[in-house]
Amino acid sequence: MLIRPIEEADWPRFLPVFREVVAAGETYAYPEALTSDEARHLWLESAPGVTVVAVGDSGTLLGSAKAGPNRPSRGSHVATASFMVAPEARGQGVGRALGEWVLDWAREQGYVAMQFNAVVETNISAVALWRDLGFAVIGTVPEAFDSATHGRVGLHVMHRYL
Amino acid sequence: MLIRPIEEADWPRFLPVFREVVAAGETYAYPEALTSDEARHLWLESAPGVTVVAVGDSGTLLGSAKAGPNRPSRGSHVATASFMVAPEARGQGVGRALGEWVLDWAREQGYVAMQFNAVVETNISAVALWRDLGFAVIGTVPEAFDSATHGRVGLHVMHRYL
Repeated sequence: MLIRPIEEADWPRFLPVFREVVAAGETYAYPEALTSDEARHLWLESAPGVTVVAVGDSGTLLGSAKAGPNRPSRGSHVATASFMVAPEARGQGVGRALGEWVLDWAREQGYVAMQFNAVVETNISAVALWRDLGFAVIGTVPEAFDSATHGRVGLHVMHRYL
Repeated sequence: MLIRPIEEADWPRFLPVFREVVAAGETYAYPEALTSDEARHLWLESAPGVTVVAVGDSGTLLGSAKAGPNRPSRGSHVATASFMVAPEARGQGVGRALGEWVLDWAREQGYVAMQFNAVVETNISAVALWRDLGFAVIGTVPEAFDSATHGRVGLHVMHRYL
């Protein structure tokens, strides 16, 4: 598996993953009816942020991550990141590989911590992965996410120093 | 004191307040070098959000608040809001009046809760006011705000049902 910056040719391959993840309604509070350009604007970070893809040995697009400052200016020493793994590539360690890549990147960029603002509490595998990678739940906003299958569930704020 | 939707003529009167609050470096992680248009884009909410001003009896602009959904789509049942009070109008209950107005507005709009994502923990008067208006601290992201006088301090996530 190779993790590298996203390229122009990756976008049409990633867009269906983005749409499928959002439409599933379990992990992201993004609008479902986004155009390609709107989705691209949301997912492709400009400097000082970064967007990468994970690509399999045969060139398959396995997933993507984006990272950058969680807030500008007086909050810009804390990074944030988002992740999507293609449904057919789950359970192969893609999320973990992307998570580790992003943590290394943030450390190299000089961030002092990383914060996730909205980890859906019923997204058990993500919560477990982030805990395993050193994140702790700072707090949980109750009923803040309308999950397609679970109804209103909490959103964890998760954090770790780098 | 009158609280009403912001109008075109209010912006040049509010902009110096916005700049002064941001430049003080104690409460907002906004860039300090924003143009008028950039600041306006940040502060003026479009539907379904709202931006209001508090105006004194003599027509003086005392402060402003903005509110709207904290997240789109599956998170849009939770509101968020931001507040700025003119330095010369502090201690007169302007923040409380704006807070109460925004809570009423959010209730009328059908939001089920309100969440503040980043209340600087050393902003004692704001934290006390929000507690008094029924908000609780859900969690505190450590050292996430670089305060001009206190250095790195925590950012509270605060929440209340409506």
